[in-house]
Amino acid sequence: MKSNLLSLLFLVVLATSVSAQQNLIPFAKPIIGTEKMGHTFPGATVPFGAVQLSPDTDTIPYEVNNRYNKDVYKYCAGYQYDDKTIVGFSHTHFSGTGHSDLGDFLVMPTAGALQLNPGTEEKPETGYRSRFSHATEVAEPGYYKVKLEDHNIVAELTTSQRTGFHQYTFPASEEAHIILDLMAGIYNYEDKNVWTFVRIENDTLVTGYRQTNGWSRTRTVYFALSFSKPFKQYGANDYSKKQVYKGFWRKFDQTKNHPDLAGKQLRLYFDFETEASEKVKMKLALSPVSTRNALENMQAEIPHWNFEQAKTEAQAAWNKELNKIQVQTINEEDKINFYTAMYHAALMPTLYMDVNGEYKGLDQNVHQAKDFVNYTSLSLWDTYRAFHPYLNLINPKRNGDIVKSMLAHYDQSALGMLPIWSHYANDNWCMSGYHSVSVIADAIIKGNANINAQYALDACVATARKRSYEGIGYYIDLGYIPGDKNGTSVSSTLEYAYDDWCIAQLAKHLKREDIYQEFSKRAENWRNVYDKRIGFMRPRLSDGTFKKDFDVLNTEGQGFIEGNAWNFSLYVPHNPAAMIALMGGEKRFTEHLDSLFTMDLPDAFFAHTEDITREGIIGNYVHGNEPAHHVAYLYNWTSKGWKTQERVRMILRHQYHNGSAGLGGNDDAGQMSAWYLFSALGFYPVAPGSDQYALGSPLVKEATLNLENGKTLNIKALNQSDKNVYVKSVMLNGEKLTGNFIKHADLIEGGNLVFEMSSKVPK
Amino acid sequence: MKSNLLSLLFLVVLATSVSAQQNLIPFAKPIIGTEKMGHTFPGATVPFGAVQLSPDTDTIPYEVNNRYNKDVYKYCAGYQYDDKTIVGFSHTHFSGTGHSDLGDFLVMPTAGALQLNPGTEEKPETGYRSRFSHATEVAEPGYYKVKLEDHNIVAELTTSQRTGFHQYTFPASEEAHIILDLMAGIYNYEDKNVWTFVRIENDTLVTGYRQTNGWSRTRTVYFALSFSKPFKQYGANDYSKKQVYKGFWRKFDQTKNHPDLAGKQLRLYFDFETEASEKVKMKLALSPVSTRNALENMQAEIPHWNFEQAKTEAQAAWNKELNKIQVQTINEEDKINFYTAMYHAALMPTLYMDVNGEYKGLDQNVHQAKDFVNYTSLSLWDTYRAFHPYLNLINPKRNGDIVKSMLAHYDQSALGMLPIWSHYANDNWCMSGYHSVSVIADAIIKGNANINAQYALDACVATARKRSYEGIGYYIDLGYIPGDKNGTSVSSTLEYAYDDWCIAQLAKHLKREDIYQEFSKRAENWRNVYDKRIGFMRPRLSDGTFKKDFDVLNTEGQGFIEGNAWNFSLYVPHNPAAMIALMGGEKRFTEHLDSLFTMDLPDAFFAHTEDITREGIIGNYVHGNEPAHHVAYLYNWTSKGWKTQERVRMILRHQYHNGSAGLGGNDDAGQMSAWYLFSALGFYPVAPGSDQYALGSPLVKEATLNLENGKTLNIKALNQSDKNVYVKSVMLNGEKLTGNFIKHADLIEGGNLVFEMSSKVPK
Repeated sequence: MKSNLLSLLFLVVLATSVSAQQNLIPFAKPIIGTEKMGHTFPGATVPFGAVQLSPDTDTIPYEVNNRYNKDVYKYCAGYQYDDKTIVGFSHTHFSGTGHSDLGDFLVMPTAGALQLNPGTEEKPETGYRSRFSHATEVAEPGYYKVKLEDHNIVAELTTSQRTGFHQYTFPASEEAHIILDLMAGIYNYEDKNVWTFVRIENDTLVTGYRQTNGWSRTRTVYFALSFSKPFKQYGANDYSKKQVYKGFWRKFDQTKNHPDLAGKQLRLYFDFETEASEKVKMKLALSPVSTRNALENMQAEIPHWNFEQAKTEAQAAWNKELNKIQVQTINEEDKINFYTAMYHAALMPTLYMDVNGEYKGLDQNVHQAKDFVNYTSLSLWDTYRAFHPYLNLINPKRNGDIVKSMLAHYDQSALGMLPIWSHYANDNWCMSGYHSVSVIADAIIKGNANINAQYALDACVATARKRSYEGIGYYIDLGYIPGDKNGTSVSSTLEYAYDDWCIAQLAKHLKREDIYQEFSKRAENWRNVYDKRIGFMRPRLSDGTFKKDFDVLNTEGQGFIEGNAWNFSLYVPHNPAAMIALMGGEKRFTEHLDSLFTMDLPDAFFAHTEDITREGIIGNYVHGNEPAHHVAYLYNWTSKGWKTQERVRMILRHQYHNGSAGLGGNDDAGQMSAWYLFSALGFYPVAPGSDQYALGSPLVKEATLNLENGKTLNIKALNQSDKNVYVKSVMLNGEKLTGNFIKHADLIEGGNLVFEMSSKVPK
Repeated sequence: MKSNLLSLLFLVVLATSVSAQQNLIPFAKPIIGTEKMGHTFPGATVPFGAVQLSPDTDTIPYEVNNRYNKDVYKYCAGYQYDDKTIVGFSHTHFSGTGHSDLGDFLVMPTAGALQLNPGTEEKPETGYRSRFSHATEVAEPGYYKVKLEDHNIVAELTTSQRTGFHQYTFPASEEAHIILDLMAGIYNYEDKNVWTFVRIENDTLVTGYRQTNGWSRTRTVYFALSFSKPFKQYGANDYSKKQVYKGFWRKFDQTKNHPDLAGKQLRLYFDFETEASEKVKMKLALSPVSTRNALENMQAEIPHWNFEQAKTEAQAAWNKELNKIQVQTINEEDKINFYTAMYHAALMPTLYMDVNGEYKGLDQNVHQAKDFVNYTSLSLWDTYRAFHPYLNLINPKRNGDIVKSMLAHYDQSALGMLPIWSHYANDNWCMSGYHSVSVIADAIIKGNANINAQYALDACVATARKRSYEGIGYYIDLGYIPGDKNGTSVSSTLEYAYDDWCIAQLAKHLKREDIYQEFSKRAENWRNVYDKRIGFMRPRLSDGTFKKDFDVLNTEGQGFIEGNAWNFSLYVPHNPAAMIALMGGEKRFTEHLDSLFTMDLPDAFFAHTEDITREGIIGNYVHGNEPAHHVAYLYNWTSKGWKTQERVRMILRHQYHNGSAGLGGNDDAGQMSAWYLFSALGFYPVAPGSDQYALGSPLVKEATLNLENGKTLNIKALNQSDKNVYVKSVMLNGEKLTGNFIKHADLIEGGNLVFEMSSKVPK
């Protein structure tokens, strides 16, 4: 009673101190993007939390008959809106990625005869899974609810940072079960489970871990699971195809009430007797370090069994996060898109540290995060573009911690490299470039990194000089990666050139002239893969000639990663002016760009292209994948900046919708959403690492940015409407801007940024 | 230079402070027992050290064509004297066990073309292994040396507690290699390797771990490896039958100079260029916790590259250990047997704790050993008999630490049980009984345990009441385990009865009357499996009747574990007098015992009997396995105590020899050797848990026991000779003993124990 009163008091105080806050929970819709290729998850989590407790609608095998199962891609987030059944609720999910892993610790409540296998979507009654309907489904930030029809159980989920909180309302049953499936997982190839270990500590507490060889090569997640009510009995089965060595463990019947379990493919069940509408609750906390830490996390974060309180706290955390920007929009759909984008841009990276500050590093040793919060799951090829700049604007402290996490990764890396895709004490090496350097340069240059900047620069340089990594040796020696040596030679050359420019900018900032010279020179390397004769970037071979039989539309085998020459040829974010000049000047360039947005692509294109969908494309402009995210803003470097305004408004309207199928492509760890957020506010960071934003066409009517420095930036779009997409003038604190750009340093001083909108193309 | 001088000074001081010490290194021969079934290893270690760095002469697969490979049993210690080749030197070995595991981190230096497979004994040139000859082999406590003939390399090994130190003298070679085989292991079944992880930290330092599912179900050993000289290059191969998931790791050529490796079946090589007679040195330290701790262990224990100094320190540790008993013997063979027994009785259990006090517990969490040294590898079914009582006499501090290790195990056990066979953060559950209780009772009753004795008693009781473990429920309900419910029903009933007596004794000592009553009653349960009609212990069925078709010689399927009715029927160590009475009184009992030692066994017996060999048998008395180890002393409970003297002397002479085949059976973690040590000193603990030793026939002429309490016990055998096996009189500090027994409490007061020997049977 006392603690409840205290909690209540706390909430009252909290409510008072955030009295200026609006309740924005109704506008952030986790369900958006859960259909088709959005790859978002609908379940419960808190901002950047370590736990993402969410329903999985299928457990898809990675291979069928020894062949890669293409459907695996659909289930990156475990959930597809069209599916008719829920297999269970697992505790870890990526948001919006195009590759996956995770799905740890799948839990499913059932009633009736025990079934330990999941069953099939066609015949859910053959297993523990259940039919469900969207009619009973509630998906809010920090809260998820659904009725499991086959079992007549209502499941509710909420979380704290490291702890999932389940509340299951059972029917009256003498055979109520909670299943813990340690075999289930996302991207679930055979042998992914390296080892699992479980201890039944007492009749309400279970601990253990699961070690996987997945997208993260060597990953172990520890858990502590607590039930609100003692189970009557429990049991387990090991479904390993090849049984693990048992030795004298054969003395025990390990399938029933045996508290000490280990193996490769374990499923457990816990039996209860329930009265009608009885709520059985369960908390499952994670740790990257140990079961002891997992239990400590649980006890520190949710020491009680009050589900409503936990939900209230989770949603309070979301309201705090979402209130960093308060907007007024033309219509409610825009407001929902805006706050859903803010929601999606606060799911990754994820907290990777216990309440005591411990985490497991790349060397598999336990490290203590001193003076920073450690994060993992950095999908940097996606997020360096707009997501990290977005954090620098609205959440700089967190981005500073992410930079520190990257430097800790560098310190622990056997290769001596900054992360490519930092993933639970591993690098999964996904995608190309070394875009950590962009994030670091952008943070330091924008004054947001309480770090040893010289050391950070050294880390950037060491990474960029790693000759053995993805053609860097060739790139250093020849100024480009030869197409006969590497399959993504052009895109990597282009990305390295941009990253090198970031290093150069940072070196300049830190007065390291030698580094500045070296990397300024490297930053020009994009020129070496431009074929003037055809006006496109093109693979160049070791002998200096260009690849023959070159297809500017094809995304495969042409030297580009997840893109074609049309999109990637525009990838010189750090020097659009020089690129335009090389491409023949403004007129030819503008025509080229216009064609990109308006051309018709053949159907065959979509059949052969990974990570690019028809929904994500406008003409041949691929918004559904990242390489062209800056492209619509390039008109700003011509005299036709209004074309950027037109295109940006079109993309905002065309690629983002309310509803489960609302995202045109993978949300990619928040990058797609961060593009939306910047663009909706009226500006975009074309080249992170510079202090400059290119202007676009704001979608909001008004926005208040509550900056961390205590200042407030008010953005107004006068005469805003669906027709008025053009910007007649921009005033910052009463002064009219003369160019198409605005400085970050000016924005964070706060004040008023006023766009005057018009339906007419400016002269 | 400075540190060398300091070390020298240290050694001088050390030498001064132990000036009374003799150099006993020449008398302890690690090679004894390495042929046939002794299962000892010849390599280097320090007393109770965590590292046992020893040559493996074959890497035997557990299965061949899906059938168990019987030869696996031969290689419990990795080495068989008759073999002609050495595969490499691995860092962990059990001593004398009849089951195995370990063989971690096999290292082999080679010269010439690189071969990463071990090759075969018949054609060693097809792999990295090498022929060797015993002529070039030196095996001393703390030091091993051999010439690897195929590579013309002299290998020398020494260790500290947690660190193996290799010194390889190479020929001139441009192709000198050191191979690190992480696939190799002892008891090497497929899928035993769960995961391995390796980092090349720099050109002299390598770290990593190996996780196995072996006799210890979930075991991970971490290492740090340092070379005295930078390698030129390195590489690795993963030999997994099913390749592990690689993802974007495919970007890297992981076979050459790639510093970040993981997989299931890894072999690595490190390349050097060597001059003639160049010594390349290597240190490999272990940790049960982390690579960080492994490196810390190495730096704390052997911070230098002076192999001779490390060897000197290892041998100084051995001399200190061996000098705890200084003996004079009839001949040198006896002295060698004695000190080799002391050596073998100081190899297990092994240190299981880092220099910083950390170790991994059964819950897989990292624990800190506070105020004790933590040990693992407690082969208790073997060692409770004489080994732990031996430590209580000569090394009580260490035995106290072992008891504390057992209680820590209990604290961490999911089952709430004391260890059966404590094994690297696991219990492998090997053999029967719950003999931890014997060790605990013996230590406390002998005044040697600085522990919470009441808590220890609670742990004993909890273990003994664990109904789900090996028939305990039946045993509690019926007073015996029914033969139709359990395959080793008789031996377990007998062992539980003895263990229960130990608990009763401890309860009495601690004035816990209820426990004393309960377990005194249970201690009588041996009576329930005695079949008066045949005069043997015999399986009793659930209905109370005895098993039909009973074979008193057969060791299989008759209700006994590793023994037959002849041997096990004498297993009432806590109450021989009552057993003798039940068996029909002194005359019939003596005849029975005489028969045991003199009968002829059919050849078929040996073909079907595990862990019992012809060498280990006298008549039907099985000395090569433990259940009968107390039997020769049972004559003391009759009027014919001299028969004990005769038999004991015969066993000492018959079962222990110099030479590689010198042990008649598995040394069993020092139990066989501890039997020898007690018996050679003239007394034996028939029932650990009592303060009483039964007298036998000493083999030594004189012995000085330097007790830890600062006192000295001098044992003299007057008129000692090979013929004078009978004891005419025994005087303790001038007072003549009247019975056949002597008290521990009296012995540890020190003084003089004088046996007068004679060739005549006493009247």
